[in-house]
Amino acid sequence: MIENLFYSQENHGPFEIYELGDFELEEGGLIPNCQLAYATHGQLNEAKTNAILIPTWFSGTSKDYESYIGEGRALDPTEYFIVVANQIGNGLSSSPHNSPDAISMSGFPKVRIGDDVRAQHQLITERFGIEELALVVGGSMGAQQTYEWAVRFPDMVKRAAPIAGTAKNTVHDFLFTQTLMDAITSDPGWNGGNYTSHTEVADGLKRHADIWAVMGFCPEFFNQEKWDLFGVASVDELVGGFLEPFFQAMDPNALLAMAWKWQRGDVSRLADGNLEAALGRIKAVTYAMPIDTDMFFPPSDCEREQRMIPNSELRVITSIAGHFGLFGGEGEAYHGQIDRHLKELLAVPVKQGVHD
Amino acid sequence: MIENLFYSQENHGPFEIYELGDFELEEGGLIPNCQLAYATHGQLNEAKTNAILIPTWFSGTSKDYESYIGEGRALDPTEYFIVVANQIGNGLSSSPHNSPDAISMSGFPKVRIGDDVRAQHQLITERFGIEELALVVGGSMGAQQTYEWAVRFPDMVKRAAPIAGTAKNTVHDFLFTQTLMDAITSDPGWNGGNYTSHTEVADGLKRHADIWAVMGFCPEFFNQEKWDLFGVASVDELVGGFLEPFFQAMDPNALLAMAWKWQRGDVSRLADGNLEAALGRIKAVTYAMPIDTDMFFPPSDCEREQRMIPNSELRVITSIAGHFGLFGGEGEAYHGQIDRHLKELLAVPVKQGVHD
Repeated sequence: MIENLFYSQENHGPFEIYELGDFELEEGGLIPNCQLAYATHGQLNEAKTNAILIPTWFSGTSKDYESYIGEGRALDPTEYFIVVANQIGNGLSSSPHNSPDAISMSGFPKVRIGDDVRAQHQLITERFGIEELALVVGGSMGAQQTYEWAVRFPDMVKRAAPIAGTAKNTVHDFLFTQTLMDAITSDPGWNGGNYTSHTEVADGLKRHADIWAVMGFCPEFFNQEKWDLFGVASVDELVGGFLEPFFQAMDPNALLAMAWKWQRGDVSRLADGNLEAALGRIKAVTYAMPIDTDMFFPPSDCEREQRMIPNSELRVITSIAGHFGLFGGEGEAYHGQIDRHLKELLAVPVKQGVHD
Repeated sequence: MIENLFYSQENHGPFEIYELGDFELEEGGLIPNCQLAYATHGQLNEAKTNAILIPTWFSGTSKDYESYIGEGRALDPTEYFIVVANQIGNGLSSSPHNSPDAISMSGFPKVRIGDDVRAQHQLITERFGIEELALVVGGSMGAQQTYEWAVRFPDMVKRAAPIAGTAKNTVHDFLFTQTLMDAITSDPGWNGGNYTSHTEVADGLKRHADIWAVMGFCPEFFNQEKWDLFGVASVDELVGGFLEPFFQAMDPNALLAMAWKWQRGDVSRLADGNLEAALGRIKAVTYAMPIDTDMFFPPSDCEREQRMIPNSELRVITSIAGHFGLFGGEGEAYHGQIDRHLKELLAVPVKQGVHD
């Protein structure tokens, strides 16, 4: 266990911790007294039918979704009880740097998207007694978890809105993610995962950020010099003043744990490798919402999957910022689209209760 | 100077060497007795009006264009005298690893696209007495040199066909290229450029190759599992059996010299930074030929520039292989398009002779 002050209530709160007990993992091994960090917005109604679940993206925390939530918005806390669940390994939930010595750092076990979804299921049912989710929505790795939820618990998930992500990760995306990981593990300071401070891996984290600069946006973003969407005034500031310190504050092993998980996101594991069969199980009304300029979750990949989902639509989001459109820097131009689609989705009538 | 048997006549020949003498560089300094490696196909006619020049791409050599040349093709050696010029720093022409100690390895000076074009101009005029080029054509960095030729020597270049490249490199492309360079320089074996064998930089060259795997093709290439276009049977073979050994055979400093040059390709330097003015100087009939799936020279970037060129057309090439469509693995499906456009271009009548 090492200290990293980035993962604080001050930076990412308010969040709470739910203790899952000893949590067994799909790849074997367990996380003793596994902790799930989560944030809530709004109140659960008496019938417990107004819950929305939002799982986090790569490197993100529950804090990142605050810009998606608000009164009068689709994700309206005066109407819904919104639970934002931090994925395992993200630095707030059980993660390499904050776990007991037996599974700390290089000893942290492999975690899968399916583990996250089972952990979140435990949180939702045990902690809150929720038996149905009005909506599961999330971006990027949050979309991977959304698909996993909809396939794994088809009766529980009434609506699903995976944004900028896939149900089965592609080969191209796997290779991309590998370069992100190699940028970190090639830093001698990483030391096989057993550094004493994340600052020893600053060079690797910088290279990790620099690859994000290439793949996270899109070519046209740079041509149009849209630096202001990220609060900076030049490309040098974008990379050196935003992206690099952004990732350099994080724990390298946390990023690696999430990236390994991201690479292997695949709901077809639930149907003997048959993606069509897995997606065919989804009962949720589903809006697949890729971002048009996304370089690694391109709309064509999302559409291919969406067509395998019975009650689904493709709702392409327009953004000049590529995958990083998710950060919402475009403000209303981005969030207006998300809100419109989610409001429409939430207005679709569904059968309440758990039906088998 | 160190030995690297990859850069041999056996692998890349036949090629010849032209000695430029002491060659002064735009960034200052000079290459003493600068050597330009080149290959020729066909015969120069008496009027010296049938010459075609082809400059090489990043990491490539004159050998790579052999699949573009043949009887009955657009680049027909029975009709044209075709000179394929190896860019400085590519391992065959003067390069870090093969230069005398004073400018060897880390001491190799910075070379620009403009230097290459001046060096090639010297080769063409001095060695062959050629005063006009029926066509300059090249892919990727070869396209950068093609644009530089057309802007720098507008009366000499009658036709120009830049394939999958730009006249002014974009910010996004610069950042991409930087990750390729950082993958190499972050390897402790690189040692500031002063390794004793390229094999000491095998890890960095591997990571360099792995980033190419992400950006060199396109997502759909992987979805369609088009491995056979590169003579392999799986993605693991594509990366581990083709791309990684491909780059690991090369000289790291050569790749860095070319990448630095690539990052700074910019014909607007010839017109005080005014790209429109620079491209407006072009007298060549120009076909800009981007590849539709290219992830770092996207057609939109090429079209923006093409519109600034007086007598030009956009001819988009269709390929499933992204930028690496250039390798021609699709055979006739790719080369048929290239040949068709180049034949049409070569059929456009132009005023012969150098007119001012």
